[in-house]
Amino acid sequence: MSFEQLRHKPLVSLERPRELVIACAPLRSNVNLSRIARAAGCMGVRKLIACGAAKVIQKIARNSVYEGDVEEGGAAIADGDEPGLEIAVHRTLAPVLRDLRTDGYRLVALEQTTNSRSIFDFRFERRTALVVGNERSGIDEESLRLVHDVVEIPMYGLPYALNVGTATSMALYEYCRQFPNG
Amino acid sequence: MSFEQLRHKPLVSLERPRELVIACAPLRSNVNLSRIARAAGCMGVRKLIACGAAKVIQKIARNSVYEGDVEEGGAAIADGDEPGLEIAVHRTLAPVLRDLRTDGYRLVALEQTTNSRSIFDFRFERRTALVVGNERSGIDEESLRLVHDVVEIPMYGLPYALNVGTATSMALYEYCRQFPNG
Repeated sequence: MSFEQLRHKPLVSLERPRELVIACAPLRSNVNLSRIARAAGCMGVRKLIACGAAKVIQKIARNSVYEGDVEEGGAAIADGDEPGLEIAVHRTLAPVLRDLRTDGYRLVALEQTTNSRSIFDFRFERRTALVVGNERSGIDEESLRLVHDVVEIPMYGLPYALNVGTATSMALYEYCRQFPNG
Repeated sequence: MSFEQLRHKPLVSLERPRELVIACAPLRSNVNLSRIARAAGCMGVRKLIACGAAKVIQKIARNSVYEGDVEEGGAAIADGDEPGLEIAVHRTLAPVLRDLRTDGYRLVALEQTTNSRSIFDFRFERRTALVVGNERSGIDEESLRLVHDVVEIPMYGLPYALNVGTATSMALYEYCRQFPNG
């Protein structure tokens, strides 16, 4: 079998828009947020919700349509045919989660908790909001009371904790593996 | 169902040491290399091979036992009970791949090429070397001639290309999903 590099292969078409939303607690690092935005865009995610003093660094994210720090529910929609990733910035996470519940999303937190389940055995629902915690403090208690499930990525060695962008990318991968066509 | 944060949960024990090796072409960014090192350590990988002027940034990697720029085959082994991630630095990738072939590894490149297959449908062999390319130039022709398989992560949207650390983490996740016990 021979392999020759092919750059800029055509994108995989989704049969329907992705119903996955990523909802991030206020993060310490806009680098991490921007890495999540890049991965989300590549995987065809349409909406990322950030909280707190979130600012996407376009040099890292390289994709997203974004209008800066918009308080409480502001958002931006891409121009043109390709919808792209919409990023909305909210002050705090819990009200976002309440709205997502009302909109019929299954709220799945990525965290280590009592009753958390291995992501290896977890079946996502199509209409899912993946809830991501702060680098140090994770997901706050009020938000944890609002989620339906908590999944964790098994840890096998040092340093015992993945970077938040890496963990989110892995969970995003798993969702897309389960819904390769949207 | 109630969820309360649990930090520092016990690690998942592997039934046998992971046989996955990650072999990186010379990368532009030691940040990317260090992110790969952190993810690999968390997932229980025992060996990472870096090429070129590779230097792991411990603040990012936070795990690895490493003795700096060691030419051609240098490596470092962890102290104590927990083996940790060993990092070896070589000048170029192709000789590394030849050695891995001799040692019975299945060489799986992460790249977009002719005859590349979706990672969603790919069954890894336990004894695998995951071959990772440079951020811009990918995997060189000589190295591509040495690999057994090429897998790609489907791309659905802008910016059409994952960061190398993100892509490697996703592939690492997929391998571990297939071999959750080593």
